[in-house]
Amino acid sequence: MTIATAAAATFAAPTEEVAAVADWRPFVTRHHLVAASRTGDDVLVRWSDGRESPYDALWLRDNCPCTVCVNPVTREQVFEITAVPEDLAPARLEVTPERLIVRWADGHVSPFEAGFLRVHAYDDVSRAERRRVKRPWRAERLAAIPTFAYTEVTGSDRGLLAWLAALAAEGLTKMVGVPTEPGTVGRVANLVSFMRETNFGIIFDVMTKPEADSNAYTSLQLPFHTDLPTRELQPGVQFLHCLVNDASGGESQFVDGFAVAEALRDEDPALFEILSTTPVEFRNKARRSDYRCRAPVIGLDTEGAVSEVRVANFLRAPVDLAPAAMRPFYRAYRRFSQLTTDPRFLVETRLDAGEMWTFDNRRVLHARAEFDPTSGHRHFQGCYLDRDELSSRIRVLEREVGAA
Amino acid sequence: MTIATAAAATFAAPTEEVAAVADWRPFVTRHHLVAASRTGDDVLVRWSDGRESPYDALWLRDNCPCTVCVNPVTREQVFEITAVPEDLAPARLEVTPERLIVRWADGHVSPFEAGFLRVHAYDDVSRAERRRVKRPWRAERLAAIPTFAYTEVTGSDRGLLAWLAALAAEGLTKMVGVPTEPGTVGRVANLVSFMRETNFGIIFDVMTKPEADSNAYTSLQLPFHTDLPTRELQPGVQFLHCLVNDASGGESQFVDGFAVAEALRDEDPALFEILSTTPVEFRNKARRSDYRCRAPVIGLDTEGAVSEVRVANFLRAPVDLAPAAMRPFYRAYRRFSQLTTDPRFLVETRLDAGEMWTFDNRRVLHARAEFDPTSGHRHFQGCYLDRDELSSRIRVLEREVGAA
Repeated sequence: MTIATAAAATFAAPTEEVAAVADWRPFVTRHHLVAASRTGDDVLVRWSDGRESPYDALWLRDNCPCTVCVNPVTREQVFEITAVPEDLAPARLEVTPERLIVRWADGHVSPFEAGFLRVHAYDDVSRAERRRVKRPWRAERLAAIPTFAYTEVTGSDRGLLAWLAALAAEGLTKMVGVPTEPGTVGRVANLVSFMRETNFGIIFDVMTKPEADSNAYTSLQLPFHTDLPTRELQPGVQFLHCLVNDASGGESQFVDGFAVAEALRDEDPALFEILSTTPVEFRNKARRSDYRCRAPVIGLDTEGAVSEVRVANFLRAPVDLAPAAMRPFYRAYRRFSQLTTDPRFLVETRLDAGEMWTFDNRRVLHARAEFDPTSGHRHFQGCYLDRDELSSRIRVLEREVGAA
Repeated sequence: MTIATAAAATFAAPTEEVAAVADWRPFVTRHHLVAASRTGDDVLVRWSDGRESPYDALWLRDNCPCTVCVNPVTREQVFEITAVPEDLAPARLEVTPERLIVRWADGHVSPFEAGFLRVHAYDDVSRAERRRVKRPWRAERLAAIPTFAYTEVTGSDRGLLAWLAALAAEGLTKMVGVPTEPGTVGRVANLVSFMRETNFGIIFDVMTKPEADSNAYTSLQLPFHTDLPTRELQPGVQFLHCLVNDASGGESQFVDGFAVAEALRDEDPALFEILSTTPVEFRNKARRSDYRCRAPVIGLDTEGAVSEVRVANFLRAPVDLAPAAMRPFYRAYRRFSQLTTDPRFLVETRLDAGEMWTFDNRRVLHARAEFDPTSGHRHFQGCYLDRDELSSRIRVLEREVGAA
């Protein structure tokens, strides 16, 4: 067993072959390396705050940041872990407070910065620190919908980041003072990224249309739904910008689908289990398109946390399940539908000209009260982008102006 | 219990309120309704071929096609199943060979066409009939890559459908005789739908670039990968069009990722289980973007069939797992990586000017041999769209010209 401590290590200045290739972001830690030793397949690192982090030898070899293993221009890995035997072992470890150098049995040398190791440590404590849980909200949210002024958002990266961070955390934001010129919604979305095109176009107009290919383009009440559940990936972010709203009725209604799903899990875990495992088909049929997608109403991530809801009663296809599963499915579906209309979750408010909703379409269900198309004009414009684009933009802004 | 048979039923001609709203496609069956009876919560239908199909009463009420329940313009449902009590029962069933009329206890009347009922029957036999399994392919595929002439595909809907059906079934097709004018790849993709934009643009140029932000834009060997595993939804379809290929080296290599995954499942189910349940993070870092996505290497649908693979060693982030899971993960990952290079799966061939690959990017892994950038010019153009768009286009073409 090789044991190295920062105090005891003979530290050689890094040569060219061990010059680390940085990521685009710095990996910062205020903790120092104290010691490193081999235990079985692992290198066990001790930190200045007492934490101990094991790193599997294959993990370390796999993550070697040297310029042979990583293309320094693209910053992408060239080395493949299958290029070394499974029993490859470190021959020598050298530790300084800021660095761990691993000299491998085959002669390769891997230099790791403390920041990189700490940010990627996978001991239980480090992993638990990284878990972020979203807090679902209920009707009380109405009093505090995160609201941003158009001029703040467009005026500085810091203002833009504040809005996007709120959108990512809460799933629903309002913007006020937005110009009512058509197309503005696209210019706001472009502050984040390109938009996501669909068969409804890039920017869609929500207004009554004579040959409507969606109930959205009528004056009908629309029950709570996510948009485009008929696609494998429902759009992650939806923008709805009000240009004119002189009609009576048509209030916007929102519920946090994560809150509804968690309420069902609390109330009846068996019904939650059904909705999170049973695929339901959604169909969007039109003259020139025919979209269909089968997925559960409640989507879970690999840790079992709710990651999306998929709901649109008006787009649901006939349920296709084994006969014995049909009635239990309907019990679960009916209960979930009832919960979406429970007043404890409901946020109802009117959107006026010059205002814009931005919301996580895979989390926040939206609905519209029926309106009277003869009472006045009503015109919204909307567009989509995906969670991937939102997250990427937030990370780049955080690199530039620091966390929100 | 109400029993109705086609022979015995007194069939009333449909009145306005029971006029069925058709879908955009006809639901055709050559089988007739013979009888319908209530058994518990179900209506049990007997068909002319002897099949018996149960339909839960809630399922029938939910799928009522009348013009009150379905908006006849948008052909979307207006009725919500929560509007009736769970114990709503049929009061009377009327059967003709082509129709089942359900008269409900609350007075509502639901007219079902035999075709609709047969197409959506969920008895065990009917469900089994609808399951389509993809047949993975191996190296022998090289001799028979489905190949289509540009003029055939662009010349008729039938030619277009033949190509798209092969793409959907096999995951890899070649097109020959494609004009080498830049932008052609986009015009071909537009035969299917709009393209999917990414941070690399709508149409991307694959050629060596001095400040490359991806190993794809170097002359390096690229190991087997899917494109954009850094997105929740990897692009479903990739187009690669060769404009010029005068460089030595740079052969295109393909393997069917579904075949590799199934080989791993056969060889070592425990390793398959690890790769189909363990989330792996992929990162695409650049100056202006920072995409990250966590998902398993092998994606399964709700029936346990392989629905996608997600692989790009050069984009993989440091693995983040509990310490005890790390070495087993590396065993599984290494074995999968080794299998991707097993000659029994490999299809290797050169793409020349005027040829185009189209492949399922979530199924077929692609690789590129290193090439010598000093030996000649090499220029490909590519673009993406999603499986949803491909499937929708196929369905609409099938409506118009019949199945391929």
